[in-house]
Amino acid sequence: MIIVGEKINTSLKGVTEAVINRDEKFIQELAKVQADGGADYIDVNCGTLINEEEVALPWLVRTVQQVVDLPCCIDSPNPKALEAALKVHKGKALINSITNENERFTQIGPLIGNYEAAIVALVIDDAFGMPKDADTRVQVGKELIEKLKIMGIRESDIFIDPLIQPISSSGEMGNIALDTILGIKESFQEVHFMCGLSNISYGLPKRGLLNATFLSLCMMAGLDGAILDPGNKRMMAMIYATEALLNKDKFAKKYLKAFRKGSLEF
Amino acid sequence: MIIVGEKINTSLKGVTEAVINRDEKFIQELAKVQADGGADYIDVNCGTLINEEEVALPWLVRTVQQVVDLPCCIDSPNPKALEAALKVHKGKALINSITNENERFTQIGPLIGNYEAAIVALVIDDAFGMPKDADTRVQVGKELIEKLKIMGIRESDIFIDPLIQPISSSGEMGNIALDTILGIKESFQEVHFMCGLSNISYGLPKRGLLNATFLSLCMMAGLDGAILDPGNKRMMAMIYATEALLNKDKFAKKYLKAFRKGSLEF
Repeated sequence: MIIVGEKINTSLKGVTEAVINRDEKFIQELAKVQADGGADYIDVNCGTLINEEEVALPWLVRTVQQVVDLPCCIDSPNPKALEAALKVHKGKALINSITNENERFTQIGPLIGNYEAAIVALVIDDAFGMPKDADTRVQVGKELIEKLKIMGIRESDIFIDPLIQPISSSGEMGNIALDTILGIKESFQEVHFMCGLSNISYGLPKRGLLNATFLSLCMMAGLDGAILDPGNKRMMAMIYATEALLNKDKFAKKYLKAFRKGSLEF
Repeated sequence: MIIVGEKINTSLKGVTEAVINRDEKFIQELAKVQADGGADYIDVNCGTLINEEEVALPWLVRTVQQVVDLPCCIDSPNPKALEAALKVHKGKALINSITNENERFTQIGPLIGNYEAAIVALVIDDAFGMPKDADTRVQVGKELIEKLKIMGIRESDIFIDPLIQPISSSGEMGNIALDTILGIKESFQEVHFMCGLSNISYGLPKRGLLNATFLSLCMMAGLDGAILDPGNKRMMAMIYATEALLNKDKFAKKYLKAFRKGSLEF
């Protein structure tokens, strides 16, 4: 499982102030805690500071990579901010995100190859927006992958986001996301799947229970990446358990290591 | 989800003594607590008292049904004990279990129709015993279902048990059980699937985490019944969450009801 630590995001408490004040210590502490918790990428998102994103995003990348030896997930729809951040990034970044909307695809597409990055691709296009059913999402996803491959991007550098929407808005939203993963995975075995989980439980109580359970179901469908808080021990415990159960963690090695560290909370 | 309460079993602490002493109160308390916890069937199993099973099993059925308005899951490989218990059972019993082994099939098969019962069918036969791979389990399961249908048993009265074995013995055991469910469900949409969960985690720490997570994965594959302790709040919480996520609990009604009762533990 590829874990993207979600905590450095100006929509979260304290982060906006830290970015405005260029408080390196605050940001670096968040990066270090997530790295220790098992993050494979550190997400950086300052989308709420819309006027200074092009300056703040590269600052975040540099600040994070001063203290952790991990790549960033550079999280913005703004191609200028993305490029500024990619310029200072060390290693192979993950760009978050592209869609199949013509303008966004044209602007962000070239950055992937130019900076040898990996890419999160949302199953959104101009005709359908966020498609309402799984079949259309699969169709949009496949088209996106084909277009990215024509540009020379490898399947294994593409992370499809099936778009998680609240089951409180429509009961089928969970199945739609699961079927989108299953449908795309059938045609592209090397593509990765990644998403945030918390939307699924919006409007319902005990959201942590729903989020963690849904993550486990998504993993069975083929999800192999998630944007989450690696400090969420129950979520991480479900990941370790699911990997062991699906034989993606041979001899339950990671599960047992997490147990010995005392981090299998349930 | 069809919940079979597993607590009245002479392999569990206190139950042997209660059965030997014909302690109705002890047994009836176990039955009532499980009914309150959400059981659809009360399992009765006195297999460890092998010499008096034919007397004790019907006593258990009568004792349970004096206080709860639920059918029993009559749990024994002994056809005489099963028949004695079926004779006194009120309503539609669930017989646990038949296999595709010739002797067992011949002895237990006729009881199903004669007592208008439902049946748990294990994917075991004479040639393969407990088959090592999912394909063979699917094959044995399909044969069993066909034979039961020829005897006039409806698909919807058959509960296939995919056989849960420890992932600590082989990492593929989880996938084998999941693929067995998926494979049989493809051909028989009305058949139910039911199993006990706890074997999956044998030999590993934090068994409750593995058991509950695996139940959730099995539900996504098509499992719609489980033999468990309805007093296990974390397991039940995962069931409610999974049903809501897979839209098997419309408008998350049962999930919200469980939340209001304070029983969504996580």
